[in-house]
Amino acid sequence: MNPSGIISLITDFGLSDPYAGVMKGVVLSINPLARVIDITHQVNHGFIAQAASILEEAYSFFPAGTVHVVVVDPEVGTQRRPLAVKTENHFFVGPDNGVLWPVINTSKNTQVVHLTEKCFFLPRISQTFHGRDIFAPVAAHLSLGADILQAGALIDDPLPLDTLTPSQIGEELIGQVTRIDHFGNLLTNIHRKDLEAFQGLDTVSVKIGDLLIKGIRNTYGDGGEGEALALIGSSDCLEIAVNRGRASDRLGADARSAIGTEVRIRKGEETLTT
Amino acid sequence: MNPSGIISLITDFGLSDPYAGVMKGVVLSINPLARVIDITHQVNHGFIAQAASILEEAYSFFPAGTVHVVVVDPEVGTQRRPLAVKTENHFFVGPDNGVLWPVINTSKNTQVVHLTEKCFFLPRISQTFHGRDIFAPVAAHLSLGADILQAGALIDDPLPLDTLTPSQIGEELIGQVTRIDHFGNLLTNIHRKDLEAFQGLDTVSVKIGDLLIKGIRNTYGDGGEGEALALIGSSDCLEIAVNRGRASDRLGADARSAIGTEVRIRKGEETLTT
Amino acid sequence: MNPSGIISLITDFGLSDPYAGVMKGVVLSINPLARVIDITHQVNHGFIAQAASILEEAYSFFPAGTVHVVVVDPEVGTQRRPLAVKTENHFFVGPDNGVLWPVINTSKNTQVVHLTEKCFFLPRISQTFHGRDIFAPVAAHLSLGADILQAGALIDDPLPLDTLTPSQIGEELIGQVTRIDHFGNLLTNIHRKDLEAFQGLDTVSVKIGDLLIKGIRNTYGDGGEGEALALIGSSDCLEIAVNRGRASDRLGADARSAIGTEVRIRKGEETLTT
Repeated sequence: MNPSGIISLITDFGLSDPYAGVMKGVVLSINPLARVIDITHQVNHGFIAQAASILEEAYSFFPAGTVHVVVVDPEVGTQRRPLAVKTENHFFVGPDNGVLWPVINTSKNTQVVHLTEKCFFLPRISQTFHGRDIFAPVAAHLSLGADILQAGALIDDPLPLDTLTPSQIGEELIGQVTRIDHFGNLLTNIHRKDLEAFQGLDTVSVKIGDLLIKGIRNTYGDGGEGEALALIGSSDCLEIAVNRGRASDRLGADARSAIGTEVRIRKGEETLTT
Repeated sequence: MNPSGIISLITDFGLSDPYAGVMKGVVLSINPLARVIDITHQVNHGFIAQAASILEEAYSFFPAGTVHVVVVDPEVGTQRRPLAVKTENHFFVGPDNGVLWPVINTSKNTQVVHLTEKCFFLPRISQTFHGRDIFAPVAAHLSLGADILQAGALIDDPLPLDTLTPSQIGEELIGQVTRIDHFGNLLTNIHRKDLEAFQGLDTVSVKIGDLLIKGIRNTYGDGGEGEALALIGSSDCLEIAVNRGRASDRLGADARSAIGTEVRIRKGEETLTT
Repeated sequence: MNPSGIISLITDFGLSDPYAGVMKGVVLSINPLARVIDITHQVNHGFIAQAASILEEAYSFFPAGTVHVVVVDPEVGTQRRPLAVKTENHFFVGPDNGVLWPVINTSKNTQVVHLTEKCFFLPRISQTFHGRDIFAPVAAHLSLGADILQAGALIDDPLPLDTLTPSQIGEELIGQVTRIDHFGNLLTNIHRKDLEAFQGLDTVSVKIGDLLIKGIRNTYGDGGEGEALALIGSSDCLEIAVNRGRASDRLGADARSAIGTEVRIRKGEETLTT
């Protein structure tokens, strides 16, 4: 795999401080031709599972050889290890707190390195901003073609991330909300394949909170204005939406509390009992 | 027209989801040397007129041969057509919902194409994210010099957008608010030329909501702190501002409800009667 | 100093209007190979001291020869002068309102130029958007290697910015809050060196508002969840934080009002009397 020269960023830094811009300055000081692309800087503060979910959704749409940097790092400056990961087609850099786990867990021929070589870092390492001092410079060196094995030793015990998976319990397929997006859509972990294995898409009911939805539609514009509907979203997973409205408002949930909310699928379009 | 290799983006995706970043990943996977520039991702959800107004204000400041992508697309996945447009100096890509209408309507030698050729798209087309699956890859191919006529058939019936224009009624020139900006300034559709044809700039009164403003000033810093004033803004249209304050607060309006609010211009600086 | 081809941006424009994107379009129309990096567009409206602080914190992490553009410009269109500054390693462009003062004041071999040469500007200069009409084109020309002395005459009287510095009063070292960041951390102007000259880091007490904090910790994760703590932040200055919380909430302050809040350091870890 040749580096693409592209580096993507996912952080919880927000956009009002210079932190993301400073990381780009550090990258360009090491690799002046790197192109740095923001995926998002608005992960909720310290919300590792959310960052992991966004990374999983986004990374494969970038060119092979891209370095994906994730800095959601509430334990910065403690003993948690800084990591770099090489898979068949992509590089990843971030803290060993589970945020890279889904990628490590689902990729082939994966190398996970505990970053220790100081020549890959800035000369001075603060206790509070490893995005600037460790992760950005490591990403820049990888984007130049540096060998990941020169940056530290291979490890085989990266910290796992607890993730929920759908399961069939009795007559129901039960999954969970994984994210609320900008439009208030509720993204779930129920994949199209899970639904197809459970039942055809046409004849299921979806229950979440007080909402009961019959059948799976094609897109947001199906159904009347303000109508709650279920559909297969752009990541091929079940999504709950409201046509020209916000499904999250119906749930009365915010971005953090909604995660893990149970979604129950039943065969046929009959009413579910709570 | 040679492509500039630059692609601009206007969406209502916000910045907390990976959607804008994923579009950039798709572009770079097709044209690794493209430069993608955000104009904004914070169009109000589904607000087509706002996106059209921002596009009109921004696009001509980009180099000739730039591809401008607009994804404000409440009807994604329905029968609405995806379009690409070529004018004398720029390319445009987006849904056929009126968002490209002002550009189509005011440009010369315009070609409007209904995008149908699947080799310009990603291999799999979702029902909910044509920004990723259709518009980003089409933009990337155009930025590489692909012929727009290979992407689909010419059409002559793109969906128009209802737009308001100023008119003189009796003794008054009457226009409308088109946008509230980040500073709370009220942008209008009354062009400098409209005002000059109506009356000299020095001796008019401007009435909007409960505000009555005498004369046109040069800039925001003219007048006392907290004073409402009228001026010719950076797009050469009449703008209502408050020195070191927010004119929108005086109007008691939010970004969506303010659009279309009447602005009445009268000759001389006498008080207008409501 | 050779230009790096990189231009950084700090503005108070926000991200919902096309203003920042238009500046990038202008840059690329003059220097098609420029890379424009956002530091932030979310400076509080017209808050010059905040922009100056962000610039100081960020600029040195960019490659030598970068052009840093700061457009926080409440007096745009009045008699305030537009400036360009060349230091040993960087260029700066912005209004003469104090925002560039800390850089001018602390750099060596500094040239400060009053921008007057119209061939460095857009052909038409509005009264309200010098970011687009003056600062972006000047930055683009400098990024191409234009001589700053061709852009106007040297001046020796740029407007200073009042800045607070820590001072020892009796038994106490007294500094001020300079910024609240996205995480609610309170950044101060008390440098690590100030603290070391005053006392070892281990045995001081920090008093701010109603908070009394004993000792200096290494990082945010030290101390219990919800515990207020003091540490040396990534800019080597004293910072007040709350582990997995927001120190600014404890202070009951917003971004603007908190600036200047007194921070009192006393030797030993005894309780401070208010």
